Amino acid sequence: MRLASFTRPDGTRSYGTAEGDHILDAGAVLSKKYEDLKSVLAAGAVAELAGVGEPVALDEVTFLPPVPNPEKILCIGLNYLPHILESGRPHPEYPSIFTRYPSSIVGHGVPIERPKASREFDYEGELAFVIGKDGRHISEDAAWDHIAGYSCFNEGSIRDYQNHTTQFWPGKSFERSGSMGPWIVTPDEVGDIREQTLTTRVNGNVEQNAPISDLAIGIPEIIAYASTVLTLRAGDVIVTGTPGGVGRYRTPQLFLEPGMDVEVEISKVGVLRNEVIDETSKP
Amino acid sequence: MRLASFTRPDGTRSYGTAEGDHILDAGAVLSKKYEDLKSVLAAGAVAELAGVGEPVALDEVTFLPPVPNPEKILCIGLNYLPHILESGRPHPEYPSIFTRYPSSIVGHGVPIERPKASREFDYEGELAFVIGKDGRHISEDAAWDHIAGYSCFNEGSIRDYQNHTTQFWPGKSFERSGSMGPWIVTPDEVGDIREQTLTTRVNGNVEQNAPISDLAIGIPEIIAYASTVLTLRAGDVIVTGTPGGVGRYRTPQLFLEPGMDVEVEISKVGVLRNEVIDETSKP
Repeated sequence: MRLASFTRPDGTRSYGTAEGDHILDAGAVLSKKYEDLKSVLAAGAVAELAGVGEPVALDEVTFLPPVPNPEKILCIGLNYLPHILESGRPHPEYPSIFTRYPSSIVGHGVPIERPKASREFDYEGELAFVIGKDGRHISEDAAWDHIAGYSCFNEGSIRDYQNHTTQFWPGKSFERSGSMGPWIVTPDEVGDIREQTLTTRVNGNVEQNAPISDLAIGIPEIIAYASTVLTLRAGDVIVTGTPGGVGRYRTPQLFLEPGMDVEVEISKVGVLRNEVIDETSKP
Repeated sequence: MRLASFTRPDGTRSYGTAEGDHILDAGAVLSKKYEDLKSVLAAGAVAELAGVGEPVALDEVTFLPPVPNPEKILCIGLNYLPHILESGRPHPEYPSIFTRYPSSIVGHGVPIERPKASREFDYEGELAFVIGKDGRHISEDAAWDHIAGYSCFNEGSIRDYQNHTTQFWPGKSFERSGSMGPWIVTPDEVGDIREQTLTTRVNGNVEQNAPISDLAIGIPEIIAYASTVLTLRAGDVIVTGTPGGVGRYRTPQLFLEPGMDVEVEISKVGVLRNEVIDETSKP
């Protein structure tokens, strides 16, 4: 199944399953039982969404991030060997983890924003996975059972703010600077995620292209490590790192400007597309 | 006023104002209007708490972190010059920001926990302030108007996990490894926070002692910088960094063990005290 969250034409929020050119509006039927997709995940009730709800055309909805309100978004830095090498860093022994807040991302098809504060707005195509079952001290063997599904993530980064200090957080947290979606694809539809390929296109040109199997620290290791620190909860999003080819290490450098568009595609998962506009926030 | 959140003897949660040896249980009167202290702050309604509620003895309540459910806890690293020097780093130009999740802290008087995963459990006494009014792109001149009050924070850190990579997050995020409280003191009671002094004691011995005026990057600069990145919201907690004297740079090193206790005192704010126990989480 492809699990999506969206805003209906009348402005209300819902969730459901995407099939072809429409979404079945499961939230219209189940919202008293599960107020949002995070609640569905927490209840272990994904199967209840199958075939439920009236179809709404994809072009009539506005996509939200698949889980609009995760407790946590944990991002792994520097996790593809080519990207590690282009950054001049050694092979990692541990996952490098920083966080983003939900306000830093938008859904598929919604513009991402270049901040007023910087001209160094860069793309990072990444594989995200979503936790489907709470757990602490999860073993690597048990890790796959805690995954609800996979999604595409543009981990949009403001490079000067990322490098003001050793801590990446400021450059990763600007409002509406990244995106996730279009949906979460459940593992039964993806098969082995390590056999899939990640591709990032800017204005249609391929800038990043890597097999998921290039991850230096794999998904079970990430889950085991993060859950040593704290409890992973249903709806938590973990973003696994970006491969080589980001704009700042390109010659010449390629930073995002209004009017450009970025696509992050993962085979068997989907294509996440967002145009770039200038920051819309009011002081 | 001293704004506190707590659990009553019957296990229900509330909030109110601390005076002498008791708390006035304002939540018992106002909970339909404001479900928690964050809601009071968001409504700009702190003045409504004055004198409201029946007194409950301090020794009958369990303190929660003053804002138990902040949207954000932003921590500033390396922000006192003596601590910067003992870490071998240069004077900072920008605030070094990382995050903690609410699950990483407990309230005053509740044990903090040494994780199973490490023996390098260290204290960091810090000044925290709480945002009282939402804002984006807040100027330094306007920054003080966005502060609801001040609190003590033990930014408990797992040093080996903090240094597994460049990103501090894992070492700062273990469940119940830090603490905040006992309360938030409103600015009118504190006067100029820069004239106050921070002291950390371990088993009664003074290990950290510094004037708040030693902050390398001051409170208005922190607010201006963070609100360039995203909207600061009522209830958000910003933790301003720790002075010299942490356990890992001591000779010999001093790491926290079960049975020890840590006190963080800030003049005109209060004393935050927590005993240390071993991790209580189940796998």
